Amino acid sequence: MPQFPRCSAPYRTQNIKLLHSLKKYRIGIVGATGAVGQEIISLLEKREFPVSEARLLASSRSSGREIKACGNLEKVRETTRDAFKDLDLAIFSSGSKISLEFADVARKQGCVVIDNSSAFRMDPQVPLVLPEVNSDAVEAHKGILANPNCSTAITLMGLYPLHKRFGLKRVIASTYQSVSGAGASGITALQNELSKEFSESSNEQPTQESPFPHPIAYNLIPHIDDFREDGYSKEEMKLRNESRKILNLPKLQVSCTCVRVPVNRAHSISVNAEFNSPVNVPDARNALSEFPGIELWDIPNAGRYPMPLDYAEKEACGVGRLRVDHALPNGLAFWVVGDQLWKGAALNAIQIAEALIERKCLRFIE
Amino acid sequence: MPQFPRCSAPYRTQNIKLLHSLKKYRIGIVGATGAVGQEIISLLEKREFPVSEARLLASSRSSGREIKACGNLEKVRETTRDAFKDLDLAIFSSGSKISLEFADVARKQGCVVIDNSSAFRMDPQVPLVLPEVNSDAVEAHKGILANPNCSTAITLMGLYPLHKRFGLKRVIASTYQSVSGAGASGITALQNELSKEFSESSNEQPTQESPFPHPIAYNLIPHIDDFREDGYSKEEMKLRNESRKILNLPKLQVSCTCVRVPVNRAHSISVNAEFNSPVNVPDARNALSEFPGIELWDIPNAGRYPMPLDYAEKEACGVGRLRVDHALPNGLAFWVVGDQLWKGAALNAIQIAEALIERKCLRFIE
Repeated sequence: MPQFPRCSAPYRTQNIKLLHSLKKYRIGIVGATGAVGQEIISLLEKREFPVSEARLLASSRSSGREIKACGNLEKVRETTRDAFKDLDLAIFSSGSKISLEFADVARKQGCVVIDNSSAFRMDPQVPLVLPEVNSDAVEAHKGILANPNCSTAITLMGLYPLHKRFGLKRVIASTYQSVSGAGASGITALQNELSKEFSESSNEQPTQESPFPHPIAYNLIPHIDDFREDGYSKEEMKLRNESRKILNLPKLQVSCTCVRVPVNRAHSISVNAEFNSPVNVPDARNALSEFPGIELWDIPNAGRYPMPLDYAEKEACGVGRLRVDHALPNGLAFWVVGDQLWKGAALNAIQIAEALIERKCLRFIE
Repeated sequence: MPQFPRCSAPYRTQNIKLLHSLKKYRIGIVGATGAVGQEIISLLEKREFPVSEARLLASSRSSGREIKACGNLEKVRETTRDAFKDLDLAIFSSGSKISLEFADVARKQGCVVIDNSSAFRMDPQVPLVLPEVNSDAVEAHKGILANPNCSTAITLMGLYPLHKRFGLKRVIASTYQSVSGAGASGITALQNELSKEFSESSNEQPTQESPFPHPIAYNLIPHIDDFREDGYSKEEMKLRNESRKILNLPKLQVSCTCVRVPVNRAHSISVNAEFNSPVNVPDARNALSEFPGIELWDIPNAGRYPMPLDYAEKEACGVGRLRVDHALPNGLAFWVVGDQLWKGAALNAIQIAEALIERKCLRFIE
């Protein structure tokens, strides 16, 4: 009977501790009061990232709020053109508009930017980095690095070890994305909708604005981000375009359907993949279980498979339901789950920062 | 601007009203107190099925309960070998064990059986009928007819019009199955789990037994029915095997992943399908909108696509998110939603009975 889950430690550079002892960094967190910003603060502490200053930046609305970060009570400052002075690094998690307005401003002041928005991901000048897959890409940065879309990061954590072993040819994915993917307001919306049903005093509560176009409690919404002319949502296209860039497979065929589900945290993806070489489950299992940041959690008849309730606030992604695909030649089907606020955003951004330190390329001078 | 949804009336035999005026039928409902049984009673009334006697059968536990059915207050009787005497027809919805025990008993007494369980679906002697697709198959019955699995019925409602137009070659499906697919206890389990969170007196409530192997509130469980050696669940194999039989495509390649989601009612399926002929969206749209029992609900950028909240207690299935598949040659991707208690069970069973009447083959003498 195999031991489960077979879990490799999430990616961490080997000599990061040593590097940490040599220098500490001034780090800006743009969007510090948002769902991802809060996770960045907590993960910087958890991973003992060498911080000499944590500068919390947000909109003017949050300016002045005090938040505990990296051992100190920090006052939130407004994100302005002057806010990046003397920073070594800034992690942006305030959406594309803020990134487009301020990333280049920060970069020109010598502050390296790791951006969680979609603003720069497909820019050929900007490395798009999932450190377990392409940490070497950080070396080519010109002051801005991009963090992948959450579902893309989690899907590729499961796909990449199989690609290395069998050679990826075609991907079909259907996502089950949690409400916190839309930020903290997503969780509030689901809670409000459910509490109206269970609370007797429901009618007295003010209606809160939901980030979703329809009710999400007891529902499914196959609509994340805007739609394109061809019927795909931009979210669905991210999986195709970002996978091609990260895996350096510019013609990879990817079809994706993105669906919002009434789950608070952690995204799940049902993946069917075709490979160039013949596949088998034992080799696939080995490839996955040896890979950093993956837990193979796959004894389905004992009820063991990854589920979102088990993957909130977890660094690793879980892979299960691994089997030979019945419809695709050289195909494998699997189910992958990961915390989209961590591996899909905050954790991955910090791992990019760690890779920059390890590879001695955190500084950038134009 | 097209009118949406473009909706054809759900399948109903053309002269059923005339037939109804000629004769009424004695009908047994096995599992009358269950989730599907209750829907059968309500749909027999809604569709004005010509009932002269509605005989409600269930386990000894429910025996003696009084339930209103087809205009009368009927006493529930225990399902025994003698319970089928003088019935024209019995619809079984009590699971495979009861069907295996009593279907042949009923049949031998001249009572035609329409079975909702999986017991006889793959029996070559038993027609497996989705009336919109293969109503002619009812004519070959030998006393037992089978109703397809719920996800299979809903998926094929979307797939069959496209198959007729383009010729189906390969199907990849991921399901989002509601809790009532596990019966009334599925809804109770979800409600109990949620109410514990919202109710202050939660600890005083007795823990109810859940039909699910893990918590379902805020969660996803990629586990429906038992698992086979090869890692597929039996539920996943039903989509392959039953689609092959209903479509008469014995080598159709089908890969399916079945997932339980915290939705009360209506199943949703993300489908990627490959066809033999070149596809295009306008022709696919026409094929779907002309098909009985389908609503084409497909203006995604206006927020129009089928969702489970809109498809509970609806006879039609909804298709949306129709687009050319990016990964499969001659491929189409779409999203289909249907009430699994109606089109996936009770409604389809009654439609089979209507087809038997129309084709004058409700009687069977061995």
